[in-house]
Amino acid sequence: MPHIVLNSTEPGIRGLLRYRPQTARPLSELTEVLLRGPSTLTRGERELIAAYVSALNDCQYCSSSHSACAAAQLPGGMAIVDQVHADPATAPVSAKLKALLTIAAAVRHSGQAVTPDHIARARTAGATDVEIHDAVLIAAAFCMFNRYVDGLGTTAPDDLAVYAAGAQRLVTQGYLPPSADLGRDG
Amino acid sequence: MPHIVLNSTEPGIRGLLRYRPQTARPLSELTEVLLRGPSTLTRGERELIAAYVSALNDCQYCSSSHSACAAAQLPGGMAIVDQVHADPATAPVSAKLKALLTIAAAVRHSGQAVTPDHIARARTAGATDVEIHDAVLIAAAFCMFNRYVDGLGTTAPDDLAVYAAGAQRLVTQGYLPPSADLGRDG
Repeated sequence: MPHIVLNSTEPGIRGLLRYRPQTARPLSELTEVLLRGPSTLTRGERELIAAYVSALNDCQYCSSSHSACAAAQLPGGMAIVDQVHADPATAPVSAKLKALLTIAAAVRHSGQAVTPDHIARARTAGATDVEIHDAVLIAAAFCMFNRYVDGLGTTAPDDLAVYAAGAQRLVTQGYLPPSADLGRDG
Repeated sequence: MPHIVLNSTEPGIRGLLRYRPQTARPLSELTEVLLRGPSTLTRGERELIAAYVSALNDCQYCSSSHSACAAAQLPGGMAIVDQVHADPATAPVSAKLKALLTIAAAVRHSGQAVTPDHIARARTAGATDVEIHDAVLIAAAFCMFNRYVDGLGTTAPDDLAVYAAGAQRLVTQGYLPPSADLGRDG
């Protein structure tokens, strides 16, 4: 049961976005830009970084939701996602994505944990500065979302089919809800 | 020196906001809503939560910047801010703010660290559900900002007068830069 009295029974961050539309708007826009905006990283790769950090933070709702979104947009589907959760170093993903996942894991620990060597390895693997920037910010943003969702004790469905259905909606419609839900005067 | 090549010499998050206007817009809007939007928590109280979490995360830029903003907007000035950094339990702030700072410290550790007892104590001290929500999200957001700023190795001035001057600008003008800097098409 959530720690505060929400105005819906929606699970995870969905209930929080509905409760506080003033903060929902920039939070949704940030997610849309980071995970779906123009980028040389694919949407699947970016969802995978979000899912990986959320799993390291033990956030069931965010980890399940973004794993489903990654699986829906990566050629390897959930098999690849599961291999990354088990061990990114041996998962069949590109050297560039491995290096960015290593940076994301460091960011999850703390900003100071990112070293020049992490950055150099990502560059050697072909990562651009914008890709490094975005990987750091995606990891940092999910350190926020995970704390928001769990810090307010929101609920998380156990049924993975719920997340798969949600992912289909997110993949086709994105993170910005209809303006009626999140209007500027909301 | 920052880990990536930025397009300005601005320190801390300012250089990152200038580098990536697409993400700067929702990040700035989130900060504006959380720290300066309509709330029953004062702007000084909210800046203090941001400064406290940033100090726990050892983020020199964010801690110095938001300490200066808190000092500029709290009746007790920097003396109160310093006492909160030293020990919120004995600092001369309200029981409600102490309870919210305790929740913020838990969020900084992890979302799962927030307990029903933390929430009950905050309610007993007079905190509303929206205030608890906002304290959790401010703490979570600064776990993002701190990681963003330090994860990309941005610089932080040592001279506290720089932060005091920045605080005067933020207190009067807010976190939303002129639209020319952060336009939707930026």
